[in-house]
Amino acid sequence: MKVMVVGASGTIGRAVVENLSRDHDILRVGKTQGDLQVDLTNEASVTRLFAQSGKVDAIIATTGSVHFGPLAEMSSAQFDKGLQDKLMGQVRLVLIGQHYLKPGGSFTLTTGILTQHPIRTGVNATAVNAALEGFVLAAANELQGQRINAVSPTVVTEALDKYGSFFSGFESAAADRVALAYRRSLEGIDNGKVYRVW
Amino acid sequence: MKVMVVGASGTIGRAVVENLSRDHDILRVGKTQGDLQVDLTNEASVTRLFAQSGKVDAIIATTGSVHFGPLAEMSSAQFDKGLQDKLMGQVRLVLIGQHYLKPGGSFTLTTGILTQHPIRTGVNATAVNAALEGFVLAAANELQGQRINAVSPTVVTEALDKYGSFFSGFESAAADRVALAYRRSLEGIDNGKVYRVW
Ligand SMILES: NC(=O)c1ccc[n+]([C@@H]2O[C@H](COP(=O)([O-])OP(=O)(O)OC[C@H]3O[C@@H](n4cnc5c(N)ncnc54)[C@H](OP(=O)(O)O)[C@@H]3O)[C@@H](O)[C@H]2O)c1
Ligand SMILES: NC(=O)c1ccc[n+]([C@@H]2O[C@H](COP(=O)([O-])OP(=O)(O)OC[C@H]3O[C@@H](n4cnc5c(N)ncnc54)[C@H](OP(=O)(O)O)[C@@H]3O)[C@@H](O)[C@H]2O)c1
Repeated sequence: MKVMVVGASGTIGRAVVENLSRDHDILRVGKTQGDLQVDLTNEASVTRLFAQSGKVDAIIATTGSVHFGPLAEMSSAQFDKGLQDKLMGQVRLVLIGQHYLKPGGSFTLTTGILTQHPIRTGVNATAVNAALEGFVLAAANELQGQRINAVSPTVVTEALDKYGSFFSGFESAAADRVALAYRRSLEGIDNGKVYRVW
Repeated sequence: MKVMVVGASGTIGRAVVENLSRDHDILRVGKTQGDLQVDLTNEASVTRLFAQSGKVDAIIATTGSVHFGPLAEMSSAQFDKGLQDKLMGQVRLVLIGQHYLKPGGSFTLTTGILTQHPIRTGVNATAVNAALEGFVLAAANELQGQRINAVSPTVVTEALDKYGSFFSGFESAAADRVALAYRRSLEGIDNGKVYRVW
């Protein structure tokens, strides 16, 4: 299959590409690296991406950032920034990408364990992830002959140096284990499912 | 208690005001009606609201609109409109309102049955409601000595003429029954809870 991976150079994206490239044709997409570049927060940039890629069999997103900070000091603008990046970025990829995804094709988005297990300073992350899981649940019923799922990883072992202090006491998962869930979404029959890797 | 109800003139808001005004002092807030006016999508307007109201014992939101339309035709701008109104509107009310809510005070927000039960054309509603439920879950852990909950009504009986065709086969709930959940949030000890009235 011709599989587009947006966020291919990231901690999770690299593991997904390594796993899937064994038997699929991968189109590596990133903001600054990869075969093609895109800024998911920019409408014209996403339209241009698909004009360049043409039709694909699957679209995977392993990207998106949110705002971390104490609720007591959080501004609406900071909260909205997470909405515009991790949430609207992946939603925009689906809204535009549905017209470039072949019949039978699948979307796989990325949420995270914070949906169900909030951490200090993570209010925006929990809201954004929950919105994405709601989006997947509802979009699955409306997509015609295409599927959509999400992967919700716990903190990734390879990212513990960056995020470990936020996830005190959480078990981590190795990136290659997280990557399995993307393959399961891609090659399985599930629709509207969130794969929790935790 | 001095209870601010934003959306006091609405189908749900009217029932909440009727129930709570039996033994609380209600500050009715709306976009065009009520004791005070606010536009929750506007930062300066919310700041002005609290400058006018002063400190309150509870803040209730029974407001917020989302985008309804088929996924296949949905634009990012339409999706974002629902984020900015029902989601960011209520989030903004909390982010600013937390500094005007007395110790021991409570927030009660409004989501809806579409969080868990998507309907045709309702992808934006499901995502927005899910984000609000995530927000409530996470914010409950960070608020210091204040509580936050949400009420998730099914379609309200009094609104069946407007929304009934969207909710084919759903059982409705009378507005005065939905109002009970707001009282339970206000006077109870729950924190981070979503009361499903369905
Ligand atoms: N890491 C974890 O422990 C963990 C755990 C749970 C959930 N998650 C979630 O998994 C996702 C990926 O996390 P990660 O740690 O693997 O990310 P990462 O290592 O920071 O990599 C980010 C990737 O996204 C691309 N990117 C950045 N901004 C972009 C934009 N505006 N448009 C398109 N692409 C953009 C980057 O491209 P370039 O390199 O080309 O610039 C890069 O490939 C995030 O949603 C994160 O919340 C991560
Ligand atoms: N009705 C249902 O069956 C149902 C079911 C489940 C969930 N819900 C949810 O419950 C909430 C209320 O629904 P409803 O049907 O009761 O609403 P509604 O009857 O349409 O009333 C809306 C209320 O919100 C106020 N308002 C509108 N825009 C505003 C803004 N930008 N800033 C501040 N206030 C604003 C209005 O004020 P003015 O009148 O002063 O202009 C009015 O009081 C919504 O979030 C809806 O999704 C409704």
